[in-house]
Amino acid sequence: MGAARRIRGMMPGMVRDLQELVRQPSVSATGEGLEDCAGMVCRMLAGMGANAKLLRIKGAPPVVYGEVISEQNPSRTLLFYNHYDVQPVEPVELWDDDPYSGRKRRGRVYGRGASDDKGELVARLGAVRAMLDGGGVPCNVKFVIEGEEEVGSPHVREYLLKHRKKFACDGVVWEFGYVDVNGRPIVGLGMKGLLFVELTARGPARDMHSSLAAIVENPAWRLVRALHTLRDARGRVLVRDWYVWAERLSRRDIALVRKEPFDARSFKSEYGVKSFLGNMGVQEAKRALVSAGTCNIAGLSSGYGGEGAKTVLPSMATAKLDFRLVPGMVPSVQAARLRRHLCEKGYGDIGVKILHGEAASRTDPSSRLVQDTLAAAIEIGRPILNVSNAATGPMDAFASVLGVPCVSVGCTHVYSRIHSPNEHVRLDLLERAARCMCGIAEKYAAP
Amino acid sequence: MGAARRIRGMMPGMVRDLQELVRQPSVSATGEGLEDCAGMVCRMLAGMGANAKLLRIKGAPPVVYGEVISEQNPSRTLLFYNHYDVQPVEPVELWDDDPYSGRKRRGRVYGRGASDDKGELVARLGAVRAMLDGGGVPCNVKFVIEGEEEVGSPHVREYLLKHRKKFACDGVVWEFGYVDVNGRPIVGLGMKGLLFVELTARGPARDMHSSLAAIVENPAWRLVRALHTLRDARGRVLVRDWYVWAERLSRRDIALVRKEPFDARSFKSEYGVKSFLGNMGVQEAKRALVSAGTCNIAGLSSGYGGEGAKTVLPSMATAKLDFRLVPGMVPSVQAARLRRHLCEKGYGDIGVKILHGEAASRTDPSSRLVQDTLAAAIEIGRPILNVSNAATGPMDAFASVLGVPCVSVGCTHVYSRIHSPNEHVRLDLLERAARCMCGIAEKYAAP
Repeated sequence: MGAARRIRGMMPGMVRDLQELVRQPSVSATGEGLEDCAGMVCRMLAGMGANAKLLRIKGAPPVVYGEVISEQNPSRTLLFYNHYDVQPVEPVELWDDDPYSGRKRRGRVYGRGASDDKGELVARLGAVRAMLDGGGVPCNVKFVIEGEEEVGSPHVREYLLKHRKKFACDGVVWEFGYVDVNGRPIVGLGMKGLLFVELTARGPARDMHSSLAAIVENPAWRLVRALHTLRDARGRVLVRDWYVWAERLSRRDIALVRKEPFDARSFKSEYGVKSFLGNMGVQEAKRALVSAGTCNIAGLSSGYGGEGAKTVLPSMATAKLDFRLVPGMVPSVQAARLRRHLCEKGYGDIGVKILHGEAASRTDPSSRLVQDTLAAAIEIGRPILNVSNAATGPMDAFASVLGVPCVSVGCTHVYSRIHSPNEHVRLDLLERAARCMCGIAEKYAAP
Repeated sequence: MGAARRIRGMMPGMVRDLQELVRQPSVSATGEGLEDCAGMVCRMLAGMGANAKLLRIKGAPPVVYGEVISEQNPSRTLLFYNHYDVQPVEPVELWDDDPYSGRKRRGRVYGRGASDDKGELVARLGAVRAMLDGGGVPCNVKFVIEGEEEVGSPHVREYLLKHRKKFACDGVVWEFGYVDVNGRPIVGLGMKGLLFVELTARGPARDMHSSLAAIVENPAWRLVRALHTLRDARGRVLVRDWYVWAERLSRRDIALVRKEPFDARSFKSEYGVKSFLGNMGVQEAKRALVSAGTCNIAGLSSGYGGEGAKTVLPSMATAKLDFRLVPGMVPSVQAARLRRHLCEKGYGDIGVKILHGEAASRTDPSSRLVQDTLAAAIEIGRPILNVSNAATGPMDAFASVLGVPCVSVGCTHVYSRIHSPNEHVRLDLLERAARCMCGIAEKYAAP
């Protein structure tokens, strides 16, 4: 295939592009370098002949939009969703190099964003450039590259609604795709939803001497008691009606999950855990990753957190909770159920602040885009179909606003340390992913 | 009384001494200024004619020891226990002045330690100087002034055991004494004990993405579940055998508690609480302050505590708990009961680190020292007898090592913001307390 040779020849240039992007900080949590990075991405798109521009909404970083119209088949459009922002680099001391080094070593490029998501983006830019060099793209190609993915994409739905026509397409290739320990690409069909809340229990007007705990209720105790009512020891959420709207896995989905490989031993050793939650078996764990609604304590804080002892009765206590949602669950409705639950249990005084809400999304495995992606993914390795990722992204926003299927495939090795020190991308996977993207476009362009 | 006039005349000098002491930081939590402050106190003692020196134990700040031998009655000895260390000044931004200003304003001196315990100390130094100026002390007077009271007096027992003969006395005047909202001195006969522990639940080897909460147990959840087994909603500790050794209040103590005034309305409005724990009434609250064993959450921490959302499954969760103990409870035994409880409930993996243990102590209300103190306290106001303070101090160490009664009386107004921003001392109370100390020595010296 011509595209493969062209991509091979383009790899040095793609590595330079990736290094340039990695060396440009773009931390959405702090805002550092977002504008510069967006400009850099926009120039890269324009440089390869795409119609490129920055779209803006007040109070949000720009979205980089790029468009290449196909002469061969202008009636079909593939949209690549990516993001140019990255996670913070902390803890800096655990990196072997500068977090923004972009250093190439043993077939990898290191640095924050090397995989997530600048590596994925470079693979796609390379694929489109290779197609253009080979005579043109087989269908229209659009890029929507946002700058807030790592902080929960708070404006992506607004961008989508505002530019619904501009972004019109027949299918979306999601911003990332995992490659498992055996080199098999995971073709992902869905993302879970998320409800992230902060619970706050308030007690006395200010911190008190803890000797007064004999007569004054401690808000940390109230919080502990309230939390205890939310979830059982096996992880099931005890809020009334929590699961009533949750769609169950279909027989087909269950069969797909069963077929998915999962190396439980490697997982446990990587994370240092002895058993799965509630002693579940491997098949049960695989199903939970795809379809369990969770309630996780992401943060607990109250009183004194320093070294040693301090006898204080704290004036407040907070818990940050993230609930993963499955299809059918509506974040605002789940939040209302949570509030009702707290009231019914006698904790109506505990404040509930909603920090983030996002619905789950799943693409039908029989859709054309999925089939073409599976066929093209052979460029990376023998693909695995994954009904839903355990994590959350704004897939529902794309799927519901644009009304199209979304599929995730890419070059991110599962242990490439995304969000952690020493993030890197394997260049062999990046090259394979670029070939895969060409394959998707070619197949999807066919009638 | 001559002493009263002399004290009046000495007040400007006592205020200068207090300001000098307050301006000298001496934070036992960090070690800042402890040596300098100990030296300053030692010079003040020597300056008034006491035999003064610094006693040392390896790894601990010095104890300032002072001694004035009586020519009139060298067979009886009163010991003043005080401390020269203070609490940290944080949060600095809530102070109206520099926390170490020692500023005098409207009859008060402000600054960290102004009441606790430098004000109390200055009142006693002033009393002894006044007695010396008036012809000598009526009985021997000793000072034991330590530098670790605010961190739980970890070495005071060792100092007492090492210098048991030097510290020999007939009675101890405790380091502080409260004055209530009506200006009535509270003559205190006891302190509760304390068991301070840190519970640590551990999960995965490092923080994980919270999407994995579908299959990995979260240590914060285990901690919440374990905590929930420790205490009921009314504050009663649910650990097996927790109370079996606890001595109950005697009929005389119960009568004393009933007589103690307690302005529940002012208390509630000062601290911004609507009701007492478990909706207890005023009499019940008074009894709880004196005799309830508590379990307080002094700190909770796990995962992300910053602004906004972060989807993390934390690798560990900790709770700092302080249990107030009543007479009969032995800290190490209570700790063993706590460990057994956690094992029995299935939380044997949760680490229990003992940060502090101190037994409760109570002095017999009919002892001579108490009667003399009650009579002398009239210098401050009509005294109230308090069977036990709700808080903890190393009173058991003094009482058991020296084998003498301890009684607490002093100049600390209940709302003088000790341990908090804008700590201050009322100079009228400081002067009255100095007079009271002279009275105690005189009465106690009598045959």
